[in-house]
Amino acid sequence: MTISQFVHRFTGVLTLVAGFAFAGMALAQADPLPSWNDGAAKNAIVEFVQATTTQGSPKFVPPAERIATFDQDGTLWVEHPIYAQVMYCLDRVPAVVKAKPELAKVEPFKTVMSGNREAMAKMSQGDLLKIVAATLTGMSVDEFTAEVKKWLAEAKDPRWKKPYTELTYLPMQEVLKYLRANGYKTYIVTGGGQDFVRVYSEATYGIPPEQVVGTAGGTQYGYGKDGKPALTKEPRLLLNDDKAGKPEGIHLMIGRRPVVAFGNSDGDRQMLEYTKAGDGARLAMLVLHDDAKREYAYGPASGLPVTKVGAFTQALRDQAQTQGWIVISMRNDWKKIFAFD
Amino acid sequence: MTISQFVHRFTGVLTLVAGFAFAGMALAQADPLPSWNDGAAKNAIVEFVQATTTQGSPKFVPPAERIATFDQDGTLWVEHPIYAQVMYCLDRVPAVVKAKPELAKVEPFKTVMSGNREAMAKMSQGDLLKIVAATLTGMSVDEFTAEVKKWLAEAKDPRWKKPYTELTYLPMQEVLKYLRANGYKTYIVTGGGQDFVRVYSEATYGIPPEQVVGTAGGTQYGYGKDGKPALTKEPRLLLNDDKAGKPEGIHLMIGRRPVVAFGNSDGDRQMLEYTKAGDGARLAMLVLHDDAKREYAYGPASGLPVTKVGAFTQALRDQAQTQGWIVISMRNDWKKIFAFD
Repeated sequence: MTISQFVHRFTGVLTLVAGFAFAGMALAQADPLPSWNDGAAKNAIVEFVQATTTQGSPKFVPPAERIATFDQDGTLWVEHPIYAQVMYCLDRVPAVVKAKPELAKVEPFKTVMSGNREAMAKMSQGDLLKIVAATLTGMSVDEFTAEVKKWLAEAKDPRWKKPYTELTYLPMQEVLKYLRANGYKTYIVTGGGQDFVRVYSEATYGIPPEQVVGTAGGTQYGYGKDGKPALTKEPRLLLNDDKAGKPEGIHLMIGRRPVVAFGNSDGDRQMLEYTKAGDGARLAMLVLHDDAKREYAYGPASGLPVTKVGAFTQALRDQAQTQGWIVISMRNDWKKIFAFD
Repeated sequence: MTISQFVHRFTGVLTLVAGFAFAGMALAQADPLPSWNDGAAKNAIVEFVQATTTQGSPKFVPPAERIATFDQDGTLWVEHPIYAQVMYCLDRVPAVVKAKPELAKVEPFKTVMSGNREAMAKMSQGDLLKIVAATLTGMSVDEFTAEVKKWLAEAKDPRWKKPYTELTYLPMQEVLKYLRANGYKTYIVTGGGQDFVRVYSEATYGIPPEQVVGTAGGTQYGYGKDGKPALTKEPRLLLNDDKAGKPEGIHLMIGRRPVVAFGNSDGDRQMLEYTKAGDGARLAMLVLHDDAKREYAYGPASGLPVTKVGAFTQALRDQAQTQGWIVISMRNDWKKIFAFD
């Protein structure tokens, strides 16, 4: 190749590179959050991402520190009127009773086996804990994962008649992707079971198991019947990943303070506080369930009692106001709720 | 631009792309492990990485599943004759006694304050635990991090007169980089304190805090004097990340079975077993300290008693033989031990 040929080719490359760069800019300017209505919530997200990822911006956050944490139930997918994981536990009771027939005569298993929904709705916290222990512990980690996979493939939400994993909020899926496209590492920080959520987090949210922090029990290392090493799930609580347990779990599992945190209930208060208390730019947002038609309305914004699942209390709303946490109105801020809408 | 100009430029791009690709291949063929002598250990690593990352290979491992776990003390850096973290705890005792003068008259603090090395060497496990609790808990996570940073900047290993973070093994640093360059996510899985190792893991090994699994205590969320949220380190053990605790910790913190595991002592046995028991290609390796001249010789390969720190017992050697774990001889397999050699 002669020098002039080389220069010619090199200029060609530059032209193409410039072309790609232009296409890249155009792409960046395309709406990253098409399911969001224009408004304060959407603006806050877009402005925050731009400010924290633009080199030289006073709010710039180095890539290694771009940690974003998301509550799951009520923030990323439907939690009302009953958590998907509670449905899993109730659905597992017949198999547990089949393996241990003596349980059929013992409460709360007797009530669950009766199928009496009204009686089940009245079960105490203690009853639920017994069901949780019987259905989430005592088996190997691999057996548990296989059971959850099977259930997820079959179970359907009674209102939408769809698998639970399709009941994720499209606008939040867009936020997850938008943050990741901008170098943020996205984590789920859930009061739900860590082992449960890890089964579907990658396929459902693009969040790998190692980026799921949740309520976690201990495991016991031992050897199976085949002599192979196995971990057995024990009824021993290591981390109650709710309320104050959320920042504690974040420290245990991530070891960095988040820059971005999304929640929807009083259980997320400490995570949002902890996030906002860090130096530099921080974003804290809360999903308000005020859309009785397209999803549900609960918490103080609706007529439902605040003790319902996913309580967005007035105290939380007040704290959001004082501390600059942005409230997302499902009714006003979200153009679409689900991908299938 | 005419069509012919475009074609010309396009060809130019292709030529350049081909050129870069060729340079890339040349780079890939350069020795990724220059501090290793040719031999079975080095071959095993290179062959494993090639087989698990070549699309279409029967041993191919999808990128998301490429998890590699490394013990730290004695595997990534010097542990002999005393763990760096134990030195930290002993060095912190004067500050603890200054803050609580009543401790000066109480054992084991009295012995540590006396500076009598012989008496200190005779301290029981219970004494050490008291020192650990007094120096690693009771302060906020941020205060602890600041103290460790300060200590690391000043403390020196007595033999090499260098900061502890320079006493990492160059051949292992090359393995970490080589694995990462091939899509592996590298984790430290240490019996040492998770919060301690996280302070320097990124700068020292290129491993971010969220990829450090270690012995971990609980924290308590609360509010500091300034009213800001803070996490206080509590003397409450959540995870004893040694022996069976290693696979348990891996499950808790990562949620995937590793494909690659490196250790050096009986404390790593279960991690290697667990790794090898997975389906498909797996690599398990053990560093043997048999180089009394350039580093240390201990375990059954040397004259030192196996009860010494980092015991590589005969039972471990036997199990390595049976289960196909590859033993790395520091003396024979490593051309250089440290970057400063």
